[in-house]
Amino acid sequence: MDKAFPRLRARDDLFTSFINHMLQSKLFYKTNKPSFASELRTGEEKSAISNELLVNAGFIDQLMAGVYSFLPLGFSVLKNVENIIRKNMIDAGGQEILMPVLQPKENWIKTGRWNNLDVLFKVNGSGDKEYALGPTHEEVVSPLAKKNVFSYRDLPISVFQIQTKFRDELRAKSGLLRTREFLMKDLYSFHANQEDLDKYYEKMIKVYFNIFKELGIGKQTYLTLASGGTFSKYSHEFQMVTDAGEDIIYICNKCKTAVNKEIKNETPACPNCSSDSFVEKKAVEVGNIFKLGTKYSLPFDLKFKDSDGSEKPVIMGCYGIGLGRSIGAVVEASHDEKGIIWPKEIAPFLVHLIEINPSTGSGQAKKVKATAEKIYQDLQKQGIQVLYDDREDKSAGEKFAEADLIGIPYRIVVSEKTLAKNSVEVKERNKKSTKLVKIKQLSKLFK
Amino acid sequence: MDKAFPRLRARDDLFTSFINHMLQSKLFYKTNKPSFASELRTGEEKSAISNELLVNAGFIDQLMAGVYSFLPLGFSVLKNVENIIRKNMIDAGGQEILMPVLQPKENWIKTGRWNNLDVLFKVNGSGDKEYALGPTHEEVVSPLAKKNVFSYRDLPISVFQIQTKFRDELRAKSGLLRTREFLMKDLYSFHANQEDLDKYYEKMIKVYFNIFKELGIGKQTYLTLASGGTFSKYSHEFQMVTDAGEDIIYICNKCKTAVNKEIKNETPACPNCSSDSFVEKKAVEVGNIFKLGTKYSLPFDLKFKDSDGSEKPVIMGCYGIGLGRSIGAVVEASHDEKGIIWPKEIAPFLVHLIEINPSTGSGQAKKVKATAEKIYQDLQKQGIQVLYDDREDKSAGEKFAEADLIGIPYRIVVSEKTLAKNSVEVKERNKKSTKLVKIKQLSKLFK
Repeated sequence: MDKAFPRLRARDDLFTSFINHMLQSKLFYKTNKPSFASELRTGEEKSAISNELLVNAGFIDQLMAGVYSFLPLGFSVLKNVENIIRKNMIDAGGQEILMPVLQPKENWIKTGRWNNLDVLFKVNGSGDKEYALGPTHEEVVSPLAKKNVFSYRDLPISVFQIQTKFRDELRAKSGLLRTREFLMKDLYSFHANQEDLDKYYEKMIKVYFNIFKELGIGKQTYLTLASGGTFSKYSHEFQMVTDAGEDIIYICNKCKTAVNKEIKNETPACPNCSSDSFVEKKAVEVGNIFKLGTKYSLPFDLKFKDSDGSEKPVIMGCYGIGLGRSIGAVVEASHDEKGIIWPKEIAPFLVHLIEINPSTGSGQAKKVKATAEKIYQDLQKQGIQVLYDDREDKSAGEKFAEADLIGIPYRIVVSEKTLAKNSVEVKERNKKSTKLVKIKQLSKLFK
Repeated sequence: MDKAFPRLRARDDLFTSFINHMLQSKLFYKTNKPSFASELRTGEEKSAISNELLVNAGFIDQLMAGVYSFLPLGFSVLKNVENIIRKNMIDAGGQEILMPVLQPKENWIKTGRWNNLDVLFKVNGSGDKEYALGPTHEEVVSPLAKKNVFSYRDLPISVFQIQTKFRDELRAKSGLLRTREFLMKDLYSFHANQEDLDKYYEKMIKVYFNIFKELGIGKQTYLTLASGGTFSKYSHEFQMVTDAGEDIIYICNKCKTAVNKEIKNETPACPNCSSDSFVEKKAVEVGNIFKLGTKYSLPFDLKFKDSDGSEKPVIMGCYGIGLGRSIGAVVEASHDEKGIIWPKEIAPFLVHLIEINPSTGSGQAKKVKATAEKIYQDLQKQGIQVLYDDREDKSAGEKFAEADLIGIPYRIVVSEKTLAKNSVEVKERNKKSTKLVKIKQLSKLFK
């Protein structure tokens, strides 16, 4: 057997091949000066602060209402969010698949949603054919499961995808918080009985809170009871409290479970602990889980042979998280008047290295640049993701303002002044203080 | 500064969080018995052998004509292909972005393609609005570049995405070789002058051949001259020779450059070396690169200020590879009458571990299972991706036939017979011979 394993090498490369270092002079982006001052923003305007920050800092670009491109900085954040979600889904036993955007009209007729789902985009094809542009995938995953699930031995099983969805939202106005095209993680679980679904569903609530914790919005996010449809009393939304939210939730002061407006109107006491003391908050829905029961297995004839030989319909659950919306929510939760403050876990880079040049061409300028370049290389060797502001035509003030706007966790400045002390200046984005660190000590900083 | 770097940990996790080990009894898939016998297949039927293999082995599922889901095995291959392409694009200086599927009608009117591109899917939205379902992204990337490119200092620059595209192909019948919804890598390059584009274009030809080599189809793939439009004499297709191909190419016997049918009819001699000796072959296009010149920069007013202060239109190039089509092409190029033979670089797993149980419940059966489970754990610890056929209700014959169909590079068998010699049986999918390897030596096999 050969000893060479290109595959293992390829997997190693994969790590270093994601964007992990970049010269700012080469980066595909342009920043705009922030036009907002948060204390002056009101009502409608105020709802879009994450949008304004993400657009001004060059993370995303609006193509039309509710439709955005992710630029390199935004794409890096998106990949980090995707990987946090993927890891948690795989840990929860999910198998990753990829289902299509284009879906047959007949499947949507079968579930009655072709004419009843107002956000459904319809596509014209040749030969007067019509298709649905997938806003969700029950109409695909149910017939797919029918081809792969036959016996109780095949259950439980869960599959997920991280895939682009489409909804013709009229209210597409809050940047990534409500778009018409968006990346979503949707997991579907299949069970032999209700108890098994209930158990998995409870586990998934914990998994979701772990995801929001890793995304940096765990503390602001509340499990919120919502209407459950035919098959269970409640479904559950994960609502992040923010003034930019378009939803209203009522958080129980005693047990911290929340209910949405519909449930609050129906049930004045907390369904979890019976307390009647609530606080009302604006919030944005960052996730939603639902016990589907047999709602989709029945129309698609998805059944299995149980251990006693009888045929039964498969019991289903579904579990969604919007990736773009999560990013918007993080920025709503974590910014100041100067710009974004990224949590380390999803920041586009960990370090923003900035050279401040005294005057172009001088001996000192050369020394500053040579030192910055050396640090840039050293950080890469350590596997630290670094954006290096190597631009010579920008002032220190411009560079600092832009770094604050972009919001990378660590700022390292190399200047004539720091070099005089054989040091660099290190500042964390979420702190006021700076400190001088000896260049020789820098390699220890990230260990 | 804190010493804990969750971000670095998350990146480490990323590696292990892709599907890298799986119990076959839990895998979301079902195989069908191969219904083909390659020597008996003719004409139309023969063109779909990769489709039949990928469907029968449980890699993909057809939702409707030209539209497929990727199941866990197929998704793993897709991710491997994606990572090979991504790595090569980043090495070539590409910056990864993500542009939308939904595109404004007015951009397509502007380039004259709204009514002239017969494969364009059109979408109906609320308020009688119409959108294009992106078959390509010149209509998005050109106005996007206009917001980010202003000066000669911003050039050259290149951006790419790995993203889902839509084309209403009437001939969608060859499985992944021609679909209506497909993942594509498209890179767009922007230059200050023609010479710079020409230089980058030549470099990209080398990068493309490196990708096809890494995918395992380098030897069968030919650079093929095709019609170039207004701005250059030729564009270039990368054509892989296969009987399943719907294109005809003419390979120069002297210099091995190929031309497509259109060029062959216009120019009987080889445009590269003037030889007139060609061999005619069926082929499938796996990549295409094109010098766009100012075709899209002019309608979108994409210009830059040159070093002499004058304003000039940006010069563009575009470079595409279909991911699904590449997978179909690999299977066309690498299979036998028993099933798929995956190249190691993109195989869904590197090792297929199979336990053969003598009789359920016996002491020997327990020992076989315990040994297989130990090996399964050990391979994972080594970072080897392994599919473990732990099923107790399948015969050795069924397991071997399915392993051949799925096509994982290394098959490791644990049975009563091998255990008697403290060994396992190792076989490579693309070789006839098997050999016994001592269990103690197994850990050295993949070093």
